[in-house]
Order: sequence, then structure tokens, then C-alpha cells
Amino acid sequence: MPKMADRMLYMEDTAKIIRGLFNAMGDPETISFGGGAPASEGLPVDQVREICNDVMTWDKRGVEALQYGSVLGVPDLRKAVCDVLLKPKGIDADPDEVMIVNGGLETMNLLCQVYINPGDVILVESPTFVHCVEIFEMFQAKCVAVECDDQGFVMEDLENKIKEYNPKFVYVIPTFQNPTGKTLPADRREKLAELGSKYDVIVLEDDPYRELRYSGEDLPPIKKFDKTGNTVYANSFSKVFSPGSRLGFVYADKNIIARLFDAKTATNSHTSNFAQVVCAEFFNRGYFHENLKKLIAIHKERRDAMIAAIDKYLPEGTKRVFPDGGLFTWVELPGGINTTELLEKAADYHVAYIAGAGFFTDKDGKGSNAMRISFGNVSPEKIDEGMRRLGELIKAEMK
Amino acid sequence: MPKMADRMLYMEDTAKIIRGLFNAMGDPETISFGGGAPASEGLPVDQVREICNDVMTWDKRGVEALQYGSVLGVPDLRKAVCDVLLKPKGIDADPDEVMIVNGGLETMNLLCQVYINPGDVILVESPTFVHCVEIFEMFQAKCVAVECDDQGFVMEDLENKIKEYNPKFVYVIPTFQNPTGKTLPADRREKLAELGSKYDVIVLEDDPYRELRYSGEDLPPIKKFDKTGNTVYANSFSKVFSPGSRLGFVYADKNIIARLFDAKTATNSHTSNFAQVVCAEFFNRGYFHENLKKLIAIHKERRDAMIAAIDKYLPEGTKRVFPDGGLFTWVELPGGINTTELLEKAADYHVAYIAGAGFFTDKDGKGSNAMRISFGNVSPEKIDEGMRRLGELIKAEMK
Repeated sequence: MPKMADRMLYMEDTAKIIRGLFNAMGDPETISFGGGAPASEGLPVDQVREICNDVMTWDKRGVEALQYGSVLGVPDLRKAVCDVLLKPKGIDADPDEVMIVNGGLETMNLLCQVYINPGDVILVESPTFVHCVEIFEMFQAKCVAVECDDQGFVMEDLENKIKEYNPKFVYVIPTFQNPTGKTLPADRREKLAELGSKYDVIVLEDDPYRELRYSGEDLPPIKKFDKTGNTVYANSFSKVFSPGSRLGFVYADKNIIARLFDAKTATNSHTSNFAQVVCAEFFNRGYFHENLKKLIAIHKERRDAMIAAIDKYLPEGTKRVFPDGGLFTWVELPGGINTTELLEKAADYHVAYIAGAGFFTDKDGKGSNAMRISFGNVSPEKIDEGMRRLGELIKAEMK
Repeated sequence: MPKMADRMLYMEDTAKIIRGLFNAMGDPETISFGGGAPASEGLPVDQVREICNDVMTWDKRGVEALQYGSVLGVPDLRKAVCDVLLKPKGIDADPDEVMIVNGGLETMNLLCQVYINPGDVILVESPTFVHCVEIFEMFQAKCVAVECDDQGFVMEDLENKIKEYNPKFVYVIPTFQNPTGKTLPADRREKLAELGSKYDVIVLEDDPYRELRYSGEDLPPIKKFDKTGNTVYANSFSKVFSPGSRLGFVYADKNIIARLFDAKTATNSHTSNFAQVVCAEFFNRGYFHENLKKLIAIHKERRDAMIAAIDKYLPEGTKRVFPDGGLFTWVELPGGINTTELLEKAADYHVAYIAGAGFFTDKDGKGSNAMRISFGNVSPEKIDEGMRRLGELIKAEMK
């Protein structure tokens, strides 16, 4: 076979981790805190069926849904993004500054197509979302970790590293971060937008979890503080509508959207019109707000059950994040336990999580005692039982 | 704003053409032979509505459609690809050798991710599908045109250029080619597969039109002759199910699928499960064959109407391809007419086509008198009227 491209070798280590994430589902007896899925019970199955029944007709939206569409996406879905998702956050966006993409992650891929040459630097959180690191590495970007405290980026270290590395992007998940569940405070958000403008760096704000808030006060997106177009706002419909429909959006300066248009046509032309039409109707009929209440109730119960179970079953000295929203918490174990090695034994206890080390780009042993714990798609009863099993394993290990 | 990646400059000329293609739709008075859409009248609107009504329920496929899915795609859709689309062509495929992608073009993007370094050579037909050239150029590949006759690749020139350029891919649309409507004969298909094996080159067989045959004898895919895994078979559901659902598939050697898996996770994780589940049911319920008969009847009538209209309205000395299937014919005008310049005047006549020059990678004036004429989504009456307008314009031009 012909030789592979250099990028495939460059991304190989991270690709191994991602393959593991996708192959983790399997044994039905295992209670998995691994994947990042929201609750299946919160999916809008009935609404989608009703919408299809109403609009998949010749005289309504059947042809629009099934025929070729436009590169930027279905107009009323882009309008819903502006009116329903951005306006309440203080952002006055034009639908022509919004492109619909095939799931939230695709924005990271397309923005790399537009900006990243091999060797370019992307500053990331420590830890950060490993799946996006895979994307950045496919473009042969060098990911450099910025120091983080309990609230996210340490701003002094960030500014120093911008000066030192002259990065193309600062990649950040400011709200209920993946993997830690942490949230960046408002003053740091404002500062981050300013740094993007000051040093002419793109702040890539990845914000898929923000609507799922269970406690604490709502915070404005970094993008709200952007005065120069240097912040690009990436979001997803996966956590508020449906992950399987693969819908996300990017809101950015029109000059950036114009280049993302080219990268999109050279990737897959446009996002499924079928999925977009149904999602647009979901907003048009006001189902978004109604369904979000249900989603928040389901996930808040699970967040609370998870925190209670961690405190009940994991050993003294365990540190954990109390996330105000989203799908994850981050646990650090005492006693020198290596969570990558522990994961193999966890199979015997029929419980799973994602080992922490993979979320650090430094690969210098950070996170070796940590784990990402996802509670989105596990019932409260199973959360209790799964954490009981995990606690038992850890205690056996510490003996 | 930060500097763009080199690839964006490299692709700019072709990206301009693609922007034109997507912006062409507009004036409702214009009869457009430009876009490559199939007939809206053939879209399975009623079947899709029925399927959604049946399976978008909690106890059937609602959760599967709306929750995260697998990277390779929905299992019964991959099985339908093997049983319904590949087996009748003499190909015995395993569903694990098939990946579902977000529209047929995405395969070209993903395969470039896996194999193309900047400067690598891709051999293409002359003319070839300009949208794929945009993809290849985004990866900074050098496209080299191979001489073509009335049936496609001139095999001697192809072998010479493989030896001269040591390309990574040979890109070919063997059946009802885009833009010409030509079909590569069986003996050249067999030879092409052999050349891929002999010189360890990937033959990228793009075959989205093959099911839409209106005359002549069915031919086996190049992939059927492949003994070494060097041929990769790319196809789309756009012309047999729905373009707007954005579904395609790639069938390839398992080692290539394993690398495409990585490129797919670093592009958009997986293709819309929602669209896949509905398409799978379309096959499971036997609607594919029933709907294909309807599609062939509609498009054959349009092909015949187009050929008749060309012969009736275009001037003596016009050359045109009689396509045995697909959506396109290729017209070469006499009398030194430049079709790029003519297109501007065509707006006044409310008729549109795609100028030929853009389909040639040499950019040396080839195709300056040619046009791609698409008849898929224009009624026979409008085909007659549109070609009458075009004929009038051309005759005025020749005076």
C-alpha cells in the first residue's frame, strides 16, 4: 500500500486513545462512566416523530429536507441560533455569520483547514478535550498546555505563552469543561477576548455544555467580549437536541465564515438538510425551552447522585470537582494509584471511566491518578451501584 | 486576523469556481442546467414520512437515531450496502469493510487526510469533476490530467504518467462521468485495477451515478477487478435515496478503513445516525428497487428530451455526448465561442449551464468552447424551452 501522509503518524498516539473511547461500549453488564453522551431519556423522540409527520410532505418541507441545500445551512435554523441561543447571551448575531456543521467537533476541523500549517502552535487547557487534540494533531499543530487552576486558565501563564509561542489558536472550553467540569469566571473570559485581540490570536471558544446548568449563575460567552472578530464561537446541538443527528454551529466574523465556507465545500458540501429541517422545526415550535427543562431536571439529579456516590464510596483524600452543569466531573485519587492501570482491573468489576492521563498534552505523567467521570447517560441507581463497584476496586488496590 | 494556512491559497482559484456553483441558484425565471441535482420529483418524500412515523418511537429506533452512534455507521445500512448495492455487481464485501460518510464527496476528503502530503500527485481525467479538484488542492496535491478519448482514460498515457509522476491516487469517475457523461469500457476497468496493483497506486473509483442507467449494458466496477486492495470504491446515496440527507459510503481494504476511521473521528466523529436509520429502513423495506425504477423513468425521459433539444436548437457542428445514464451531457460548440464569456450573456436569456474550462486542471484553454449540461432536475418542457433560449443566444453570438 502507498505510504500514509505524515499527519497520520503525528496523530497516532492520540488516535489510539480515541479508538479506545469509541470501542469502550460493549459489555452490557458494565456500568460505564466513560462516554460523553447525554441521557437517552431526554432525547426528543416524540417531538421528532411529530415534526416528521407534519413537515415531511410534498407541500411542506419534504423536498427541502431531501434535496441538496446550501453550504451555510438551512436559513431558519441559522436564525434560531441567533434568536434563541445567542441573543439571550447578549450576542447580536446575523444569520450570515453562522454556519451549520456536522456536529460540534467539525468546527475545529474546518478552522484548522483554514488556519493551521504544520508546526503551528495551539494553546490548550491542562487537561483538555483529547478528541480535539486528535483533530489538532491531524493538522500537525503543536499543542502547548497552559497552566490551569480550579477555575481554568491561569491568565498570566496564558499571556506569557502567547508571547512565547505566537500561537494561531487558544482553544478553550470555558463552561463545564471537558474533562474537568470546571467553569471559567467572567473576568477571565473578558481578559481572554482581550488577549485574542491584543495579540491577533484566534480564541476558539468551544461551548457545547453551557445550556445544561444545574446551579450557579449563568456567565456570558467569551465571544460577547470580542471587539475585533478574533473569537470564534463553536457550539453543538448534541446536548440540547440530539447527538445522533450530528448538528453543530459556528458563529464567527464574516471573513472567517467565508473561508470556512470553502473548507466546508471541500469537506462534505453541507450538513444534512434532513437533520437540519427537523432541528429547525424543533426550535420554531418552541420545543427547545420545554425540552431543556426536562434535560436539566434529568441531568441535575444525576450530577447530585454522582457527587453523593463519590463522597460515599471513594476513599478519604479523593479530590473531585463539583460541576455546576454539563456531563462530567474529574476525580483525583490518593495513594499513588495509577488510573490507566486500574482501568484494566475495572473490567472485572464491570465498571468503566476514562483515565486522566490521556487528557494532558504534555504526556509527562500528569493526571496519572485522575479520571474523567461522565454521569450524563447513567441512571441514578446505576450511578450508585457503579461507584460502589469502583470504590471497592480502589480500596482493594490500596490495601 | 492571523495568516491563513498555505492550503487556502493553493485552492483559491478552484474555490472561486465552487463558490460560483453554489451561488448559481437564484433567479426563479432562469432555467438552470448548472447544478448536479437529481429530480426533486423522484425524492422518496412519502416513504421517508412513513418510515419516520413507524420507527421514530421509544421502542423501535428513536433512541438509536438520536443518540451517538458508531464511527463506521449504522450496521444494517452497511449490510444493505453489501447485499443490495455491491453483491449484484459481483463484489462480495464484508460490512466491516464499509464506512458510511457524510455524502459521497467526504470519502475524497478523508482519503486525502490519510494519504496526501503537500506536493503528492493525483492523476485525474481530462476533464474531471472540479469539486473533487478543490478537495485535492486543499491538501496541496498536484493534479495531473491524463489524456481521455470518447470512452475515458487513454490507458497508454495513464501508464506512462503513473511511471513519470509516481502518483498517490488515480481519481476516476468511470460511469456516466461528471462532467462528460462518458463511460469507461470493461477492458479498461480491468486494466486500471491491474495498474493500481502493479504500481502500488490507489485507484479512487468514484461511482455515484451508476444506478441511473437508461441504456446500454451494465458494467462491473473497477473494484471488482482489484486483487490487492489498491482500489477504493466511493459511492453516494444522493442519486438513489436523497442528496439532502448527505449520505455516502466507502468500501475499501480493512487496513484502509482502519485509517479512514481515524480521519473520520478527527473530522466529525460519525455521520448523522438520524439520516442513516431512515436510509437503512428504506433498504430494509425494499423501497430502493421500487424507487429506482421511478428514478430511471423520470431521468431517462429527461436525458432523451435533452439530447433531442440539443440536436434541435444548437447549431450545426455542435458535438455532444450521448450519456447512457447519469445526470450530465457535455457539449462542445463550433465557431470559436467561449462558453465562459457566453455564460454572462446567458443571464439575459434566463438560462444557465456550467462553463467547460473549469473542469480542466491544465488551465491551458482546454474546454473553452464546452459546457456541462445537467438535465436531472429540469422537466422535459423546461429542457426544451431552456435549450431553445440557449440556441437563440448561441446563434446571435455566431452572427
